[in-house]
Amino acid sequence: MHKSQLAGFIIDCQGDDLDSAATFWSQALGLEKQAADDPAESDYVLLNTRPEEVHIEVQRVDHPSRVHLDIETDDIEAEVARLERLGAKRLSDIRGWVVMEAPTGQRFCVVKPARANFEETANAWS
Amino acid sequence: MHKSQLAGFIIDCQGDDLDSAATFWSQALGLEKQAADDPAESDYVLLNTRPEEVHIEVQRVDHPSRVHLDIETDDIEAEVARLERLGAKRLSDIRGWVVMEAPTGQRFCVVKPARANFEETANAWS
Repeated sequence: MHKSQLAGFIIDCQGDDLDSAATFWSQALGLEKQAADDPAESDYVLLNTRPEEVHIEVQRVDHPSRVHLDIETDDIEAEVARLERLGAKRLSDIRGWVVMEAPTGQRFCVVKPARANFEETANAWS
Repeated sequence: MHKSQLAGFIIDCQGDDLDSAATFWSQALGLEKQAADDPAESDYVLLNTRPEEVHIEVQRVDHPSRVHLDIETDDIEAEVARLERLGAKRLSDIRGWVVMEAPTGQRFCVVKPARANFEETANAWS
């Protein structure tokens, strides 16, 4: 048995100016930027949401801007296999997470648990 | 003074088979499909999230598949003006909502309040 749930949404922004991108989305959504350890070294800025809510991140990317979602799980291989059975395709393995493509065409990632409520609210799959 | 907050995310799926698209995302995210009044007539299926969470919808669209976000507000014109001052562009007015483009390139919509917690948790702008 393993567990998974929607982790959150990542606002992928093409270009180098992560700070301006994060400032726009912070102000547009009324969510404060979380201080990063070293903003200059980071490719993403987390926006503060309440503990029971999904995560929202602004990420610097090389591909055209878009929005993608992450699914968090305590067993990445089992979750990828479950999603493959539903029709998704495994595209690539990055440091610690897996990029997949839905049968409806969107790309999404399977990641380790990050939300505070993972243990209580994630779905259990057997 | 008006109020706004992140309403939720819409999973835009190109093609006619909305039911298959909604079934995939329902199973992938472990969120039940909400029964629609008349599924054959509708362009979207709402997935059930908890009352304090953002809305997640699967929508049938003609453009390439993607994910977009909605901002909900009690004053659409005031909110569009606020977002324009932040650098977003007004693209088009659809029945009751406005499509905008962020300075980072993503399209999003400004809509009427839909979340149960709008009054308590939305940001007030003066």
